[in-house]
This record gives sequence, structure tokens and C-alpha cells, in this order.
Amino acid sequence: MIPLNENLSRMRRSGIRAYTELARAVPDCVMLTIGEPEFATPQPIRQAAWAALEAGQTHYAPNAGLLELRQAIARQEGRKTSEILVTVGASGALFTALLGVLNPGDQVIVPIPAFPLYESIITMAGAELVPLDTSGDGFQIREAALLPLVTEKTKAMVLNSPHNPTGVVYDRESLAAVKKALLGKPIFLVSDQVYQGLCLGEIPSLAKDPDLQEQLLLCQSFSKPYAMTGWRVGYLAGPEEVMGRLLLLSAAEIASVPTFLQAACVTALETDNALMAETYAQRREYVCRRLRAMGLDFPRPEGAFYVFVNIARFGLSSDEFCRRMIREAGVAAVPGSCFGTEGYLRLSYCCAQEALEKGLDRMEAFLKRL
Amino acid sequence: MIPLNENLSRMRRSGIRAYTELARAVPDCVMLTIGEPEFATPQPIRQAAWAALEAGQTHYAPNAGLLELRQAIARQEGRKTSEILVTVGASGALFTALLGVLNPGDQVIVPIPAFPLYESIITMAGAELVPLDTSGDGFQIREAALLPLVTEKTKAMVLNSPHNPTGVVYDRESLAAVKKALLGKPIFLVSDQVYQGLCLGEIPSLAKDPDLQEQLLLCQSFSKPYAMTGWRVGYLAGPEEVMGRLLLLSAAEIASVPTFLQAACVTALETDNALMAETYAQRREYVCRRLRAMGLDFPRPEGAFYVFVNIARFGLSSDEFCRRMIREAGVAAVPGSCFGTEGYLRLSYCCAQEALEKGLDRMEAFLKRL
Repeated sequence: MIPLNENLSRMRRSGIRAYTELARAVPDCVMLTIGEPEFATPQPIRQAAWAALEAGQTHYAPNAGLLELRQAIARQEGRKTSEILVTVGASGALFTALLGVLNPGDQVIVPIPAFPLYESIITMAGAELVPLDTSGDGFQIREAALLPLVTEKTKAMVLNSPHNPTGVVYDRESLAAVKKALLGKPIFLVSDQVYQGLCLGEIPSLAKDPDLQEQLLLCQSFSKPYAMTGWRVGYLAGPEEVMGRLLLLSAAEIASVPTFLQAACVTALETDNALMAETYAQRREYVCRRLRAMGLDFPRPEGAFYVFVNIARFGLSSDEFCRRMIREAGVAAVPGSCFGTEGYLRLSYCCAQEALEKGLDRMEAFLKRL
Repeated sequence: MIPLNENLSRMRRSGIRAYTELARAVPDCVMLTIGEPEFATPQPIRQAAWAALEAGQTHYAPNAGLLELRQAIARQEGRKTSEILVTVGASGALFTALLGVLNPGDQVIVPIPAFPLYESIITMAGAELVPLDTSGDGFQIREAALLPLVTEKTKAMVLNSPHNPTGVVYDRESLAAVKKALLGKPIFLVSDQVYQGLCLGEIPSLAKDPDLQEQLLLCQSFSKPYAMTGWRVGYLAGPEEVMGRLLLLSAAEIASVPTFLQAACVTALETDNALMAETYAQRREYVCRRLRAMGLDFPRPEGAFYVFVNIARFGLSSDEFCRRMIREAGVAAVPGSCFGTEGYLRLSYCCAQEALEKGLDRMEAFLKRL
């Protein structure tokens, strides 16, 4: 084979899909691995896509996105339209933001455990992921752990709240530590807030902190709050001058996002998803109650749709634990090792209530047999 | 501003949009600048998208694309399904292919004039674009010009046939020169064939040359043949092992392409677009006849929907020529300088016949006044 890009050759395959595939090979296995809403996209949003399609919105959109959508996003975010770039979901926003700012050898601080996409993109950029181990601090960010990691080479920090895989929402102390570490330095704060729209009520965030606006790159998606994962629409927001350059990169990557899907996203922003958020909140209570009854520890999830369960006391690697649970009990979760933290597994409650009950029953029985 | 990625800082804004914007500021200006079909997407394809949407295909697709679509593409291309990656149009295919194979300092041979996207991506990869000037060879590729450009640093060559901006289809001598220059060397042939599907009849191509399969990366799109520019779906095909790595890059860029749009692309592949191709062929004859009557020279276009008209004898830069033609005659074309070749302009015949007639009438009058 002709040698490829050296950074790409170093990129690792995500482990998550391996467990999903393993589970699919087991008949009737309950999948608590899934990171997307099981709901279909709400009808008004689908209808809006169809209306745009029928209206002939099948031509190129502007590189930065449909003006109407960018304006609607800007209103929602309290920003200028010129600061908004429509992207291929949050993946596209993260890829464009990180590839667009990082130079080879730059360092990026990432709280660990973490969604493996960050590592992939940082590797592709030829940069270095500097892990901030949060497992000793209840998966929060503490000054004492963060400040020593900031060096001359630090070019960005990734912040993801609510957090995948822990479900944790960063508290005010975490945000203060991040602000103290980055403020006024030539370091971008890449804020991945894709689970924010499923929270009932406001959550603490640095996204609107006026002191950090020149450093903030906000990555957001329509995927989770509106059950639109398969639509692949999100956005990136940041300082106008930076966005002007990142637009060039995005134009080279994708030209633009599908036009009639963007039209439907305007409708999505007007859609009330409180019922979905409420459903997740109820399931979260149920899962937490069941896990506590099994005597398991986990950080209290306040957002996203994951619980990060401590399984250290069973003396198995998280990989072995999950493989056995699939084979022996017919229930699949993702090992903490996929997110860089051993001794845990990630349970998703993105599935129908009956499946959730069945999965947790099986897990309970499995633990008793261990 | 915090410094960005150095390659991105070097990336140049495409000039094409500047002329489109200039023209939009002139009331009733006829736009012969457009690089996309003016037709709306055919109804059966739109209907298929709606059916998939209604069937709840709103969840993530596999990273490589919907299996059904990859299989349909593989059948059409005479390839294995494992060699197909669904991308965000041909832009996504080109970006993934070039970024995935190039290392900083690598050289990429690009026949000039060229679609400016190639330069953008090559710049982003930190590689060097090595121009192959084809203007002296009727915009064909000749051994004497190509062979001296191949060095130890050559990592790829971009081939675009039918060609944007010239409309030229590479002849057998061109393809033989490319094959001789690249065969057996660690050099990828990145074949951008997005205009191929609008040709009546087969055109010569290296895409199925058995000797070149380990070096070939084919970039294709649903945009032009099915009037689906705004859908942003295309694909990349190449050696299985290479595609396995490029899949990782694509997954990091976009996760996947919108699911229900992919379902509709299966229908697109079954759609007969001969009427559209026939319409373009008729318009091409009309434009060529009119331009010849004006005494203008141009390479005979055999594909795409462009004519690359020699304007050297008017003694103006192509930029000045196009600006004056917009202001003084109300008809817009793209100057050759946007594609790296002075003394020409690109006329697109992607517009209704009446607009085309009006635009050419105005151009004729403008030339007489010059």
C-alpha cells in the first residue's frame, strides 16, 4: 500500500462500535450502548424538510449556511449571524474547529474520560492530547489538576458539559478553574455542548462569559435535542474573525450542508422538546434507582443520557466485564477503556423503557453470578 | 486574534463567488457563472427521500454509508462494496482523499486551469501544488509537459475529466501520458469525475484500468447528473486497505452522511437522466455556434457545462474583462484567473435557454463596443 498521511496512520479505531457489533451477534441482546435518541425526528421538522424539498431547495446553500438558519441560531445563542457556521453535526464543528486552529506539536487539554472523537481529530492535526484525569475528582475539573497542565504549547482545551460518558454537568468550581487556566492566554476553549438541549433548566456554562468570547469555539448540534442524529446538522460559533477563516476550511471540506435540511432546522429551533427531556429525566431516575439497588457507585448524571458505573470491585477489566456481560447475560454496555478510564462502564438509557428494564434485570442477575 | 493553523492561514478565498456577488449587485444581470444544474431534483428522488424520512430513517447511518447505497454504487462502478465510502459530495471525497494521503511537503500535480478547491485542500494539507500548464496543448495532457514534473516528492496527481473550467474530455493520449507518468510509483491518481454522468455515451477514463487500481482514488458525486447539488452526497472509491483508513478520517470529519438522503440516492442511481444530458448537449451546440459567430476561440467542450473562451486578443486581464462585462453589459462570467489561467473566461450554460440567449446577445454587443 502507498503510505498515507502519517497522522491518519496513527489514528485509532473507536472501540465503541466493536461492542455494538459484538452485541448484535448475540440474539435478543439488549443494547445499552447507543448514543442517540431512540425517538424518530418530530413530525413538524420532517414536514418542514419535505416542504423545502418540494419548494425546490435542492441547490447549493451558501458555504456558511442558509441565512435564515444562521439568523435563527444567532438569536438563540445571543450572537451575531456572522459568528455562526452551519456544520455537519457537532462532529463537523469539532473537526473544523480543532483542525483549523491546531498546528503540529500543539497541545490540547482534554478531561478524561472523553468521547474518543476528540483524540481522533487531535491525532489528525498532528497535535498532542494532554489528558486531565478527572476520575479522582468526581469527574469534575479542579484547579490543582488543571493548572499544571497548561504550558506554552497549550493551544486548546476541550470542554464537554453535560458530559459523555459520565453524564456529569460541570459545576461552578470546574468552570472557574477552566476560566482561571485559560483567560487571556492564546488558548481556545472548544466547548462541546451537544447534550445541553436535553436538560430541564439552565446549566452552568462558559459559553456566554464575556471575558472568554475571543477564545471560545462553541460546538452544537441538532442531533440530540431534536432526535435528528441522522440529519447531520450542527453549528460552530466563535469570534467573527476566526469564523471567517474556519469558513474557508469548512467550504473545502463539504462546500455546504444540505439545503433543505437546513430549512427544516429552522423549524427544529421552534420545536418544544420538553417532553423528550422529561422522558430522559424519568428514565435517568429509574436507572439510578436500579443501579443503587445493585450496590453500584456512579457519579450522579445530570445531563446527556449516560450513567458511568464503577465496576472496579469486580476485578475485571472493563473490556472483559462488558464482553462477558454481552455473552453471559445478553446486555451490552461500553467499557470505560473506550473513553480512556478503566474500572467503569457506560450505560446509555436511550432505549424504550421495557428494554431498559429488561437490560437492568439481566445486568442485576449477571452481577449476582459474578 | 489567536493564531490559527498555519496552512489555513495561507488558504485563499475562491474568486468565483466574488464575481457572482458583483453580478448580483447589478439589476437583471444574466448569470453565466453558475456551476450547478438549474433543474430541481427529479421528483422520484425527492419522493424517495420523503419515504425514507417517513419510515424513520432519521438515525445515524454507518460511517461508511448505508449498505444498500454502497452496494448499488459498487454494482455501478464494478467494484467491491468495501471499496466504497459515501461522502459529502465530491468535495468531501476530494478533501478526505487528499488530506488522508498527503504529508507536509508532498507534491501534487494539478493540470491548470483547475477548479480552485484542489489548491485549497492541498494548501490545508501543507503540501505543494505543482501546476501542469495545459493551455499550450489544447488543455490536454502531453507526456513532454507531464513527465518532467514527476519527482521523488510527487504523492498524487489530480485528474478531472470532463474538465472544469474547460469542458474538455481528456483524450487517449492524455490518459496514456498520465498512466506512463504514474504507473507503479507510490503516487495516487485522484480522479474527479463529477461531470461524467452528464455525458451522452462513454468517455475515456483510467478509472477501470486494472494496472492502476492500487493507485486510483475515484471521486464522484450525485450533484451534477441528478441535479442534487444541494443534497451534498457523493462517494470515494479506492483500494480496500486505503479505504479502511480513509473511513477513519471521514468518521472524524462528519460521522456519516444524512441517512434518508442516502436512501434517496439509491433511487437516483436508477433514474434516467438522459433528457437532462440531452438538454445540456443541445445548449452546448447553441453556445458554441454563437461564440464562433462572434469570432471567439475556445477548446471544444465535450462534457460538463462550461465553455472556456479565449479573450486574450482584447488586451484586458480576464478579471477586468469580466468586471466590465458585468457593469457595462449585464452579463456575468468567471475570469480564467480564478482557475489559474489568464486570457480566458468561463461561460456556464447551466441556465434556461432564454437567459442563455439574452446573455450571449449582451456579450456580443459588449464585444462590438470593446
